[in-house]
Amino acid sequence: MVLAPALILLLPIPAGITVQGWRLLAIFAATIAGLMSQPLPLGAMALLGLAAAALSGALSPGQALGGYAEPLVWMVLAAFCISRGMIKTGLGRRIAFIFIRAMGHTSVGLGYALVASDAVLGMVIPSNGARAGGIVFPVVKSLAEAYDSRPGSTATRLGTFLTLMVYHCDITVSALFLTGNASNPLIASLALQVAGIDLRYGLWALGALAPALASVIVLPLFFYYRRPPEVTRTPGAAEFGRAQLEALGPMARAEKVMLSVFALVTVLWLTTSWHHIDYAITALTGLAALLLGGVLTWDDVLAERSGWDTFVWYGAIFQMARALGDAGLTSALARTAGQLLTGVSWPLVLVVLLFAYLYTHYAFATITARVSALYAAVLLVILAAGTPPHLAVFAMSYVSSLGAALTHYGTTTSPIYYGAGYTTPGMWWRDGFLAATLNTAVWLTVGALWWKALGWW
Amino acid sequence: MVLAPALILLLPIPAGITVQGWRLLAIFAATIAGLMSQPLPLGAMALLGLAAAALSGALSPGQALGGYAEPLVWMVLAAFCISRGMIKTGLGRRIAFIFIRAMGHTSVGLGYALVASDAVLGMVIPSNGARAGGIVFPVVKSLAEAYDSRPGSTATRLGTFLTLMVYHCDITVSALFLTGNASNPLIASLALQVAGIDLRYGLWALGALAPALASVIVLPLFFYYRRPPEVTRTPGAAEFGRAQLEALGPMARAEKVMLSVFALVTVLWLTTSWHHIDYAITALTGLAALLLGGVLTWDDVLAERSGWDTFVWYGAIFQMARALGDAGLTSALARTAGQLLTGVSWPLVLVVLLFAYLYTHYAFATITARVSALYAAVLLVILAAGTPPHLAVFAMSYVSSLGAALTHYGTTTSPIYYGAGYTTPGMWWRDGFLAATLNTAVWLTVGALWWKALGWW
Repeated sequence: MVLAPALILLLPIPAGITVQGWRLLAIFAATIAGLMSQPLPLGAMALLGLAAAALSGALSPGQALGGYAEPLVWMVLAAFCISRGMIKTGLGRRIAFIFIRAMGHTSVGLGYALVASDAVLGMVIPSNGARAGGIVFPVVKSLAEAYDSRPGSTATRLGTFLTLMVYHCDITVSALFLTGNASNPLIASLALQVAGIDLRYGLWALGALAPALASVIVLPLFFYYRRPPEVTRTPGAAEFGRAQLEALGPMARAEKVMLSVFALVTVLWLTTSWHHIDYAITALTGLAALLLGGVLTWDDVLAERSGWDTFVWYGAIFQMARALGDAGLTSALARTAGQLLTGVSWPLVLVVLLFAYLYTHYAFATITARVSALYAAVLLVILAAGTPPHLAVFAMSYVSSLGAALTHYGTTTSPIYYGAGYTTPGMWWRDGFLAATLNTAVWLTVGALWWKALGWW
Repeated sequence: MVLAPALILLLPIPAGITVQGWRLLAIFAATIAGLMSQPLPLGAMALLGLAAAALSGALSPGQALGGYAEPLVWMVLAAFCISRGMIKTGLGRRIAFIFIRAMGHTSVGLGYALVASDAVLGMVIPSNGARAGGIVFPVVKSLAEAYDSRPGSTATRLGTFLTLMVYHCDITVSALFLTGNASNPLIASLALQVAGIDLRYGLWALGALAPALASVIVLPLFFYYRRPPEVTRTPGAAEFGRAQLEALGPMARAEKVMLSVFALVTVLWLTTSWHHIDYAITALTGLAALLLGGVLTWDDVLAERSGWDTFVWYGAIFQMARALGDAGLTSALARTAGQLLTGVSWPLVLVVLLFAYLYTHYAFATITARVSALYAAVLLVILAAGTPPHLAVFAMSYVSSLGAALTHYGTTTSPIYYGAGYTTPGMWWRDGFLAATLNTAVWLTVGALWWKALGWW
C-alpha cells in the first residue's frame, strides 16, 4: 500500500503525462494494493483513495466524486434493492422449488434445477452472494440432508456433488448476465473507456449465450465423473419441491408485484436498444414500483448494506479509471505495449495473457479487486498486440468471473459453499484449478467461434 | 401529488421555457406534494421524482443523478458518519457532562450547560435528531429524574423547563452552523443557485453569531418566566456531572482519536477560505481517519441509515433545483415577481414574507420539506422586491430552521422531547407560537443590525 505508490512517485514522469495524472496513478496503485491486502474493506479503501486524490490535487472534489452521478453505478444499487424484494417476498425460493419439482428426479437434474434457478435470479440479482449464497444455498443444504447426506462420511452421497456443481455453474452464471456479478458493470464501464465497446445488458447476455451453455454442459459432466454422487435417482427431491410449493401456497399480493417488476425490469433491460431507456432509470423505476407497491419499505432500501457498499467502491473505482484515461495514462500504456509487442502474434498474446489473468485470482478474494487492478491494463496489452477488439473485450470480460473457481476464498459465495463441509480443501484447490482451466478453455474456444458467427470479429 | 402537476401541465408554457423545463416543474411540484403528504418517506419520494424526471425526458439520466457527485452532498453523508463516532466513543456524552459539571449549579445554568453541549456537537453533527435527541435528551431526562421530576404532577419541578429550554435553543443551534441541521447545506446550495451567495461554513456561523447569542438569552428568559422550574438551585446536577465523568474514566484511545478528528474537521471547515480544501474532502478525510484509527468500522458507515437517507433526498432535490434554474424557470419567476412588486417597499415584503414562510411550517413535518418546497421561491420574491441580497439570503436561511418551534412534529427532535411527557400539547402550540415569533423577531432585528455592522448590506 505504501511501496507501490512510492515507487511510482520516484520514477520519472513519462512525456505527455501531467504531474496530477502521475499522482493519480500512484494513488490508484495504493488503492489497488489496499484492495488486495485489505487493511480496510473495499469501500473504505475506495473512499480513502478518493480523499487522497482530492487532497493531493490529482482530482478536483467534483471530479473525484463524479462516479456517483454515473447511471450504471445507480443501476447496481437499484438492482441490489430489487434483489432484496426477491428474498423478502420469497419469490426467489419459489422459483427454485418450481425448477426442482420439474427437473429434480435425478441428482444431475436436481443440480440443473438449482443452476437454472440461479440463472433466472441472475437476470436481476447482481450479487452472487445473495443469489447462490442467500437463496440457492439453503435449498442445496436441505436437499442433501433430505437424502441423509451430511458433512463427513455421508457427504459423497449427494452433498459433495451438488455443492461443487452448483458453485462452479454459479460462476458461469456470474459471467452470463451484466447483473450476474457486482463487478460486471465495472467491467462494462472499463471496456467502454478502454476499447470504446458498450457492453449493454442484451449484448452482454447474447455474447455469453453459447459459451455459457457449453460451460453448463461441461462442468456438471466434469464433476459427475470426478465426484460422482452415490445417490443418482432423487424422486424425493422433486417431491420435496412439490411439498414446499404447496406449503408456500398461492402467491401473495407482494410476491405478484415483485414478479411483475422482475419481469418488467429484465424485459426492459434486454430491449434497451429499442426504447433507449437507460438501465439505471429502468432499475430505479422498478425500485420505485416496489416501494409504491409496498413490497419494500424505504428502510429496507437504507438497510441494503451490500448495495451501499458496492455503490461506494464502484463509484470510486469507476471514476479513478476514467480519470486515468483522461490523464492520458491509459493511452500511454497502450503505446508502450504496442511497441514492445511488435511482431508477436496476437492469438499467442491473447491466450497467454487470458490464462495469466485467470490465475492471478489466487491473489484475490473478490472478482472486483482483480478487475479493478488488472482488467484495463491486461485488455490494453491484448488490444495493443492487434487482437480484434470485440474478441479481446468479450473474452476478457467473461474470463474475469471464472477465476473465482480457483480457491475457496475467490468470491463471496466460496466461503459459504466451502463452509458447508461437504467438500475438502483439496476439492477446491485441485478440482478448482482443473475446472477453472477447463471452463476458461471452453469459454475461449466456443466464445471465439460464437462471436465469429455473430460477425463481431 | 397528482393535482399540482396536472394543474401545471394544463397551464400554457410561458415564453422562454422549454417543454422539458415545464415537465420538470410539474415533477418537482409532484415531488414536493409527496414530501408534504408523505405517502412514502422523503428519500423514496425523491428517488421517484428523479425516475419520473428521467423517464419523461425532462432530464437525461446523467443530469438526473448529477446531484450525487456534488461535494456538499457528500459532506453531509460524511458528517453523519463522523457523528456516529461521537456517539459510539461516548465523546458526545463526555462533552455534555463537562459542561454540566462546570455550569450545572442552578436550573438555568444546567439548561445552558445542555445547550452549550448541543452547540459544540452542532459544529459537526448535522442531525438535530442525533444531537439533541440522541445525545443530549437522555441526559436531560436523567437530570430531571435525579430531581424527582417526572411526567405528571412533578413535571414542573425541573423537567418541563429543561425540556422546553433545551428544545427551543436546539432550534437556534440548528440555525447556527452549516452543519446544525441536514437542511442547511441544501439551503446553502439553493442560496448559491438563486442569489449567487456562497454560504460557506465560516460565513454561515459568522452571520449567525450575534442573533444566535441574542436568541439563547431571550428564549431561556421567556421560558424561565413562562414555565418557571420549582427547583432553581441544582448543586446535585453539577455533582451528577462530576460523578458521571469519574465513571467514564480517562479517555480511551478511540475517544482521543475522535476528539482529534472532531477538532481537525471543524478547524479546517472554519478556515476553508484560507486553504481552500473542499468541505466534502475535509469531511471524507476525517471519516477516513476514523476508519483507519479503528474508531468506526466500515459496517458502521454502511449502517448509518440517516446518512444514506439524507444523501438520497439531498442529492435529488439539489439537482432538481439546479435543473429548474438551468431551464430558466427560476429567472422567469423572478421576473414575474419583480413586475408584480414594482413600487412595493422591500422591507415590507421582507418582513411579511419571512413571517409567512415561518408559519407555513404548520404544514410541514421536517425543515427539509419546507426548504425544498418554498425556500428558493420565497427568496426569489424577496429579492425581486429589491431587498439587499445578503440581507435576504441570511434572514431566509436562518429563519428556515425557526419554524420547527411551532409544533410537536416540526422536526425530528420534537416527538422525542414531546414524547418524554414533561410538557402538554398546549405548551407546544401556544408557547411554540410565541417562542417562534419572538425568536424570528430577534434573529431578524439583531441579525439585520449585525449584518449591517459587518458591511454585508
